[in-house]
Amino acid sequence: MRLSRYFLPTLRDNPKEAEIVSHRYMLRAGMIQQNAAGIYSWLPMGFKVLKKIEQIVREEQDRSGAQEILMPTIQPADLWRESGRYDDYGKEMLRIQDRAERDMLFGPTNEEMVTDIFRSHVKSYKDLPKNLYHIQWKFRDEVRPRFGVMRGREFLMKDAYSFDLTEEDAKIAYQKMFLAYLRTYKRMGLKAIPMRAETGPIGGDMSHEFIILAETGESEVFADKKWENVDLEAAGLSYEDLNGLNEYFEEKTSIYAATDEQHDPGAIAEDQLMTARGIEVGHIFNFGTKYSKPMGATVQNKDGDVVPVEMGSYGIGVSRLVGGIIEASHDGDGIIWPEEVAPFDIGLINLKAGDQACDGACEKLYADLSAQGKDVLYDDRDARAGEKFANMDLIGLPWQVTIGPKGVANGMAEVKNRKTGEKHEISIESAMEKLAA
Amino acid sequence: MRLSRYFLPTLRDNPKEAEIVSHRYMLRAGMIQQNAAGIYSWLPMGFKVLKKIEQIVREEQDRSGAQEILMPTIQPADLWRESGRYDDYGKEMLRIQDRAERDMLFGPTNEEMVTDIFRSHVKSYKDLPKNLYHIQWKFRDEVRPRFGVMRGREFLMKDAYSFDLTEEDAKIAYQKMFLAYLRTYKRMGLKAIPMRAETGPIGGDMSHEFIILAETGESEVFADKKWENVDLEAAGLSYEDLNGLNEYFEEKTSIYAATDEQHDPGAIAEDQLMTARGIEVGHIFNFGTKYSKPMGATVQNKDGDVVPVEMGSYGIGVSRLVGGIIEASHDGDGIIWPEEVAPFDIGLINLKAGDQACDGACEKLYADLSAQGKDVLYDDRDARAGEKFANMDLIGLPWQVTIGPKGVANGMAEVKNRKTGEKHEISIESAMEKLAA
Repeated sequence: MRLSRYFLPTLRDNPKEAEIVSHRYMLRAGMIQQNAAGIYSWLPMGFKVLKKIEQIVREEQDRSGAQEILMPTIQPADLWRESGRYDDYGKEMLRIQDRAERDMLFGPTNEEMVTDIFRSHVKSYKDLPKNLYHIQWKFRDEVRPRFGVMRGREFLMKDAYSFDLTEEDAKIAYQKMFLAYLRTYKRMGLKAIPMRAETGPIGGDMSHEFIILAETGESEVFADKKWENVDLEAAGLSYEDLNGLNEYFEEKTSIYAATDEQHDPGAIAEDQLMTARGIEVGHIFNFGTKYSKPMGATVQNKDGDVVPVEMGSYGIGVSRLVGGIIEASHDGDGIIWPEEVAPFDIGLINLKAGDQACDGACEKLYADLSAQGKDVLYDDRDARAGEKFANMDLIGLPWQVTIGPKGVANGMAEVKNRKTGEKHEISIESAMEKLAA
Repeated sequence: MRLSRYFLPTLRDNPKEAEIVSHRYMLRAGMIQQNAAGIYSWLPMGFKVLKKIEQIVREEQDRSGAQEILMPTIQPADLWRESGRYDDYGKEMLRIQDRAERDMLFGPTNEEMVTDIFRSHVKSYKDLPKNLYHIQWKFRDEVRPRFGVMRGREFLMKDAYSFDLTEEDAKIAYQKMFLAYLRTYKRMGLKAIPMRAETGPIGGDMSHEFIILAETGESEVFADKKWENVDLEAAGLSYEDLNGLNEYFEEKTSIYAATDEQHDPGAIAEDQLMTARGIEVGHIFNFGTKYSKPMGATVQNKDGDVVPVEMGSYGIGVSRLVGGIIEASHDGDGIIWPEEVAPFDIGLINLKAGDQACDGACEKLYADLSAQGKDVLYDDRDARAGEKFANMDLIGLPWQVTIGPKGVANGMAEVKNRKTGEKHEISIESAMEKLAA
């Protein structure tokens, strides 16, 4: 993409309303624009990152055996009256009357609706287990929306719902999601630590939050120092290997980790403890028959008995992760994107747009890298070098390559790694080789 | 995907509430489920088709130079007060008050919001042209939602918005979208005919609807018989070739085509006229400064004058297209998916699940076809042959391959083309070769 054509409205100054670094950088990098309190538009570069994160979440859900559906944003209130949550939910729920004066709402979560879908179609244990997920916009009418996409009102969430015949099967479903979550975060360049959590308005008796560590995190967390070296991905572990899955789960949940509210200072030796700031990026729940019982979601078991189905739900804040990744990966100059979620692979800077030699070398490199499948943002604008460098650091692509009038005379380019800051002046051919790898 | 694990709740009987064939088949094939009047969930197979259509729309928008963003579903009413449409829009607009009693609405379209985004950032003709699009759920509170996803209340739309300095430039933007639309429909196996149209509540002075022909179409349309053989794709035409683009546009718009309201019986000779039923699947508008003037979306031109920007908007009903394609492509047994949007490439039927030879041959073919990148739905259930055949015809995958106990003894399978109905008994190796091609 040529920057001269791209809609990337970067800002030089820090927007006053932004209190935290991810919000500041997302506004400055032209990723989002606020349309109302806690409601944002995703501009082209922000949208690209959001889609990359969504796609990683999707791939890891699919890999675990969950199946994607898509439920609507608007739900009938009657479903929530069946579970009893319509009155419980309070003012965070955006309540709506349609033209026929029926009570509707903008879904903050989908336990009731997915239970309704399930009970309409599934009647036998033979159709279990099932795990259905969707990635859809939700609305929570926060009293005080803030921190940009980290605590917005309209937000993109992946929510999965598992249905099983027995408590033991439901635990397997829970363990599969547990592994899928840790793989998901790892692929985004994040280390997320699972912590036992309160179940809150979703309910249930087992629940974990997934917390990423970031200096600017919203709350204090306490964890065993072992977490620094734990293998969370477990690359060889298959979802069909139920023993392996159970071992993985037991091992990870046995290493101490707790949020502020749940921390027990006596549970772990001082010298084994690390204290850090954390950001919640996922939350999973096993809540048994909390919804299936009142809503009549039952199946026949092998003996012909009709029993309520065992359920769990599993959320990842997809739009929140965009902010979370920036909180975990930035410096004073801007964002540092992990490669898997970077909006472009490479930023190409033409230091003297209009100069025949610079234009020619840049165009060739742009075409060659693109032909190798690299997604390149080419700064072809007529602007000052300092502005171009600052802009490229701000938007934080993993690699920068700069071609200027001095170097090009000798066939040289400068290649910079955004994360380490390392710069090398090398031949344009070597740059091509290095970056296309 | 193994059918025994897939959430595909097909129905044997026609649902009473469904008046048209696409609605009937989408319910029967387990693609959607109604959650409230005109509000649907997309179950796994329906979701796959929806995503394939969305992806074709996206690729053709990108190819034309449009850039993808994502605006929220909930909009502040104040934006619509600026354009004057807040009061005009009537009861179709879903109006909402948030907890702070601010007037909000669920967007039925986004002219105001995108104009606000534009005016916040773009100040100079140097940043033009721009075309920004998004693919987002909209809500129109229809008095009488019906026909399934064809006239729902919550629906997925692609809407693009072009911004240009002059009327001539705006016409180029319009022509690019015109070509992109015809390419989009072609890729989905549809012939869509552009027809001059009324501008309605969007406004403006040039507008075309894109209509696909289907016996069950919602309205009568009149078109020159020439349309049967027109090349709509114009594969070699580049979006940079402005003369070619203009010629293409002038040629296509010179061939007679009109909706019922706009038909002039004197405009074309009787023997050149074809009459058919049509379904609207897209609508494009050039409306000049209708929004930019009242909302102050201006740019500086080369002379330093500040002028309102020239705009157009361009909609494709993404969720509606799922129904539209079925209306245009089905028979008495079920859906006939065009290859590009089919939920799976191939349906594999095991006539005797549990039989060692049948299971072995099916598992091998399933693995081999999958390894060749084919997306296979494998009916591994223990069910009657007749039920399996009827089910596979209903869901309409392009190819079916059946392995039964008689054939497998001789290494034979039956391959059926869903569209033509042609069946061939060939060796399993030949079936593999044919289907992997």
